Amino acid sequence: MRITALAGGTGAAKLLRGLAVLVPPEQITVIGNTGDDTQIWGLHISPDLDTVTYALAGLLDEEKGWGLRDDTFMCLAAMAALGQEAWFNLGDRDLATHLFRTERLAAGQSLSEVTTAIRRALGVRSRILPASDAPVATRVLTPTGWLGFQEFFVREKAQVEVLDVAYAGADQASPAPGVLEAIRTAVVVVICPSNPITSIGPILAVPGIAEALAATSARVLAVSPIVGGAPVSGPAGKLMAAKGLPVSAVGVAKLYRPWLDLLVLDRRDERLAPEVTALGITPVVTGTMMTDRGAEVALARAALEALAR
Amino acid sequence: MRITALAGGTGAAKLLRGLAVLVPPEQITVIGNTGDDTQIWGLHISPDLDTVTYALAGLLDEEKGWGLRDDTFMCLAAMAALGQEAWFNLGDRDLATHLFRTERLAAGQSLSEVTTAIRRALGVRSRILPASDAPVATRVLTPTGWLGFQEFFVREKAQVEVLDVAYAGADQASPAPGVLEAIRTAVVVVICPSNPITSIGPILAVPGIAEALAATSARVLAVSPIVGGAPVSGPAGKLMAAKGLPVSAVGVAKLYRPWLDLLVLDRRDERLAPEVTALGITPVVTGTMMTDRGAEVALARAALEALAR
Repeated sequence: MRITALAGGTGAAKLLRGLAVLVPPEQITVIGNTGDDTQIWGLHISPDLDTVTYALAGLLDEEKGWGLRDDTFMCLAAMAALGQEAWFNLGDRDLATHLFRTERLAAGQSLSEVTTAIRRALGVRSRILPASDAPVATRVLTPTGWLGFQEFFVREKAQVEVLDVAYAGADQASPAPGVLEAIRTAVVVVICPSNPITSIGPILAVPGIAEALAATSARVLAVSPIVGGAPVSGPAGKLMAAKGLPVSAVGVAKLYRPWLDLLVLDRRDERLAPEVTALGITPVVTGTMMTDRGAEVALARAALEALAR
Repeated sequence: MRITALAGGTGAAKLLRGLAVLVPPEQITVIGNTGDDTQIWGLHISPDLDTVTYALAGLLDEEKGWGLRDDTFMCLAAMAALGQEAWFNLGDRDLATHLFRTERLAAGQSLSEVTTAIRRALGVRSRILPASDAPVATRVLTPTGWLGFQEFFVREKAQVEVLDVAYAGADQASPAPGVLEAIRTAVVVVICPSNPITSIGPILAVPGIAEALAATSARVLAVSPIVGGAPVSGPAGKLMAAKGLPVSAVGVAKLYRPWLDLLVLDRRDERLAPEVTALGITPVVTGTMMTDRGAEVALARAALEALAR
C-alpha cells in the first residue's frame, strides 16, 4: 500500500499522523510545500516540512499546531532586545533545526538531502521530500504591494486584503529527486486538507507535478480543508476568493478537477456532494474535523476505505 | 582620563567592570581579542568581545565567567539530538548575539560595526573595538597537529601538550578603525590580566599595535595574570612555557618589556619585584585576586593610583 501525500502544515500533519497509524510509515512518502519557506535572522526556515517532520516524530506542539512541544523562546526575546525582527516565533529547540538546515545548505547540500537528514535524526521512517529543491516562494499581492507568505500570514496575521497569489520561481523549478516517481509508483495519492492556494498550490506549480498526478495509475483522493463555507484554519478562504474560486468543497473540487478521483467532504457539506459528482469526482462524506488523535485515525481510515472501494 | 584597555575574556571583564565604576564609561576604549573567534553551526562566535560586552552591560554569568546570566541551553540539547557538535556551550539567549553578528557580517558589515551595534543595543557606553576586522586565529600546535584555540581550550579542555602557538592571518591583518588612535590618544593604557599568549598575544600580533604601544605618550600598565607561579585561570602557564617564557609575573614582564611602564603583581609575588625593576619596569604590588566586585574596584583603583604617581 504505497501512499504518496501532498502536504502543507498543520492539517496535513494530523492526517499523516492518522495514516501512519494504519499503514507502515515506510510506505508513506510526503511531498511537502516549500512555498512558505523564508529567511529569518539569516536562517532558512521551512515551516511546512518542519511541521510534518515534527508531527511524524511525535514532537509537534499539538496545541499550537507548529513548533516543538515544550519549546522555550529565550533567543527570540534576546533578538527583540537587539532590535531584530521578532514576529516569527522561533523556539530555542526549533532553532537547532534551522541552524542545521542553514549550515548544510550553505555547504552545498540540497534541501532534499537536508530534509532527509533531519527526519532521520528525529526518527521519522516516512520519506519527506520537498516539492522542489529550487526556491518556489508564495507571494501575496495586497493593496500595498507583494508580501512573502510569512509576512502576510504571521506578521500581518492575514488581516489584509488579497488581490492575487503567485509562486515566484516555480517556472524555473523542477521536482525534487523522487517526487515524480513517488506519484507515478504510488497505489494511492492523498492530497491533505491543506490550503489549496498556498500549501498545495506551490507544489502543483512546480512543472511536471500536476502532469504526474494526471498520468499516474494511482487513485487520487483529496480531503477538503473547507468545511461549511470556511477553512478549518488559516486564510484559505480569502486566498481562494482571490483566485476566483468558490470558498467551499466545490471550489476545492474545481481546482483539483484535472486529476482528482475522490474528494472527502465533511458531513455538514453533504448537500454539495451532487455538485462534486457533476464534476466527475466521487464524493466521500464523513467527519473531517480532526479534533483529537482518534479523529485523525478515523478520517485516515475513511479515506483508505473509500480508495479501496 | 581617557583609558584604553587591551582585553581578553574573564579576567579582563572583571578589571574593566572595576574601572567603569571609577571612570566615566564613555572614557574607556576596549581593544578586544578576536584570536579565539570561531565558527560553530555556521555562526561567527567572538567569545572575548562578548564576555567584555556582557560584563559591561551587567549581563555576564559571573559564576561561569562567560555567557549570559540565567541562560538556558535548549538549542544546544536539540543540536546534540541532531548529531551536531555540542562541545561549545552556546546558550539560547547568547545565540541571539551570534545570529545577529553572523547575519550582519554576511551582509557586509565589519566586525567593528557589528560589535558597536551589539554593545549599544545592550546599553554599554564604553567603546569596544576588535583588534582587527580581519581574521587573526590563534592556533595551538599539539603532538597530533594544529588546533583552533576553542578546540584546544573547550573541546580538549587544554589537557594536551602544547608545542607552539601561532596567530594565523595576523601578518595580513591591520588594526580596526580607531585602534591605533585609541592607543595614541590615551592618557593611560591598561593591559588587562588576560592570557599573555592567547588573549593579548593575538592583539599584539596585528602589525602596528605593538609599535603604537611603544610610541604612545600614555603610561602603559599591565596586571599580571600569573600569581604564585600559575595563572589565575585558564591555560596561560602551559602556553607561556611553550613560548619559552618563565611562568611568572617576570615572564609577563619580559613579554611586554618593549613598551611596558608598570606591572601590577600580586602580594604573594612581592619577592619578584626586584626582577621586574631590573627589566626597567615599575612594579606595583597589591592584591590582584578579583574574587568579588569590591576586589575588582580595589584593583582598578590601585592601578589608576599607580599610574597617577
